[in-house]
Amino acid sequence: MSDSVETEIPLLPHIREHQGYVPGEQPDTTGWIKLNTNENPYPPSPKVREAISEQVDGLRLYSSPDGKAFRESLARYHGIEANQVVLGNGSDDVLNVLVRSFVGPGRARLGTLMPQYSLYPVLSSLQGGELTVIDFTEDFALPVEEICRLQVPIFFLTSPNAPTGVGFSNKDIRAILEGFSGLLVVDEAYADFAEENAVELLAEYTNLFITRTFSKSYSLAGLRVGYGLGNPDLIQVLHGVRDVYNLDRLAQAGGQAALEDRQWFEHCLHSVLRTRKNFVADLDARGWFTYPSQANFVFTEPKNAKGETGAEVAAALFDFLKSKKILLRYFPKHPLTDRFLRITIGTDSEMQILNKAMDQWLTNE
Amino acid sequence: MSDSVETEIPLLPHIREHQGYVPGEQPDTTGWIKLNTNENPYPPSPKVREAISEQVDGLRLYSSPDGKAFRESLARYHGIEANQVVLGNGSDDVLNVLVRSFVGPGRARLGTLMPQYSLYPVLSSLQGGELTVIDFTEDFALPVEEICRLQVPIFFLTSPNAPTGVGFSNKDIRAILEGFSGLLVVDEAYADFAEENAVELLAEYTNLFITRTFSKSYSLAGLRVGYGLGNPDLIQVLHGVRDVYNLDRLAQAGGQAALEDRQWFEHCLHSVLRTRKNFVADLDARGWFTYPSQANFVFTEPKNAKGETGAEVAAALFDFLKSKKILLRYFPKHPLTDRFLRITIGTDSEMQILNKAMDQWLTNE
Repeated sequence: MSDSVETEIPLLPHIREHQGYVPGEQPDTTGWIKLNTNENPYPPSPKVREAISEQVDGLRLYSSPDGKAFRESLARYHGIEANQVVLGNGSDDVLNVLVRSFVGPGRARLGTLMPQYSLYPVLSSLQGGELTVIDFTEDFALPVEEICRLQVPIFFLTSPNAPTGVGFSNKDIRAILEGFSGLLVVDEAYADFAEENAVELLAEYTNLFITRTFSKSYSLAGLRVGYGLGNPDLIQVLHGVRDVYNLDRLAQAGGQAALEDRQWFEHCLHSVLRTRKNFVADLDARGWFTYPSQANFVFTEPKNAKGETGAEVAAALFDFLKSKKILLRYFPKHPLTDRFLRITIGTDSEMQILNKAMDQWLTNE
Repeated sequence: MSDSVETEIPLLPHIREHQGYVPGEQPDTTGWIKLNTNENPYPPSPKVREAISEQVDGLRLYSSPDGKAFRESLARYHGIEANQVVLGNGSDDVLNVLVRSFVGPGRARLGTLMPQYSLYPVLSSLQGGELTVIDFTEDFALPVEEICRLQVPIFFLTSPNAPTGVGFSNKDIRAILEGFSGLLVVDEAYADFAEENAVELLAEYTNLFITRTFSKSYSLAGLRVGYGLGNPDLIQVLHGVRDVYNLDRLAQAGGQAALEDRQWFEHCLHSVLRTRKNFVADLDARGWFTYPSQANFVFTEPKNAKGETGAEVAAALFDFLKSKKILLRYFPKHPLTDRFLRITIGTDSEMQILNKAMDQWLTNE
């Protein structure tokens, strides 16, 4: 974890050097406008409460090890078979299980782009693996040919991308599936907010794997529900690698209830999309560059009152807003991110308060 | 997973060979007397329902990544510090995180006894590790000197043992801690049902680690709540290896509520202990050998009407009871277990039904 570990206990060498994942701040005080970890501003479906309440008395019994009912429900929703679905304690768990199955020291490397979801390097490090990284350019176009040339067993693509929100087309993803020799994992954590997703390609490509989460579009970040979709042979392997009881009773029942309440889902989704559209227009009106977002967040380059941009400007706005108890996410460590702030789409009223605070920053600066 | 995996996808070689954990049967039909997976026959504390209900509206937000409130509560209960506690999605998760930190190919082997909890070899296999195994003898005495001679970084001891229920003394555990060069992990899944546990030894030995679960004594198998206790340096490492959101909001709140309702806990615990005592007396009256149990199950050697024991007798009784919708656990693969059945302690009424069914088996055979 750090070089201050003075224990005499014989940890694996790569674990001794390992740096854990650093999540976005989860304040334990109240009164925050929390736009830093892409949570949904709306509560989960009321059906979730009912489903959870029904399960409480049964908690003395183990959860279903195969999660059959929930997997069947997911399969029906996606128009595929239940043997193409694996459940995870959040999609992070599915990503972890994939990395444990493919990545290790030597040539069994995880391929990835940067910047992307910052958990991937952490998962690779836990396996003692080295990353093979392709850097995005400023336009965040998908470097299809470069990916196809990689000799790695597995490649992680966040689509839509985090932290920019840029979405990738099925045309590009198909081109990777045709040319890349390993497993392409498309992390579709934000796909419900996008125009396109890769699920239809599962019927054609056995080297495609998709991960999804209930944390964002289903308002269930706190319940830890995710899943993976892939070819049945690989899914069968992953069932042997995951913990058999990785999903508790409440998560299985609550996730299924949320999935099946399409009306609630659509209502919340469209509210977020409408707010996103309005908020992007506000940023445009300020003359701030914002990547075209297909997610429930935007990535924008703040300009101060003098019209300047840059890492100092972004950091200053981040700090100012934090002092007002408005929490955004700032990624200072990468040249493609350090001039930007990532802003989760909240309610209309939260975005209005944010806008006013930004006005205040521009005035007082 | 199996040699039928025909995928062209480049899995790690040891994952291709890996055999997943096989949990006890979880029937999805009703009407069973389920004495096969050591669940508690009593429901969780009513405070668990309250705590869970309070959290449902907050599920749109991530759970606490550090689980501070729950860890502090556990630390108070055990009379230690919160920096000696790590939370897990069940104690299986804590065991998994330990194996990922210590076990790999080559000399970084997991040491273990057999028979013990059958998850351990599975966790080692996921790391591509080889096990170093010491076999119990029929008396299930702890082979202290043999363990002390092992040159392995980590050793797993289930105490009380599963599947026999035999407990080990702190005197023996202390002797291992004095002589063994690696980390001793005492898996205390059943310690609440035992006369002694190793928590007091944490103050003296940095090479001691203890895992606990809420699945058995707190009636929360379906919520997946476990934890580990150890020295702060090691706990810090494990925080970097576990998933930061491994415990969802409902599990953190429900676990803490169960922990703090000591009255409910004591009531259920003493009910199980009383029923265990009576049921062991019933088995003694039948003239069946039963290991002295310090857990919420017993391991007994059935005798048929002719007074015969053996694998066929045990298997026959298992099958007979299953046909009556009474589910026990049978471990046919080890010479020290194949003449025995493991029976979870249920309610008095469940044990009466079981006793009657055993009488019927003896009569009809």
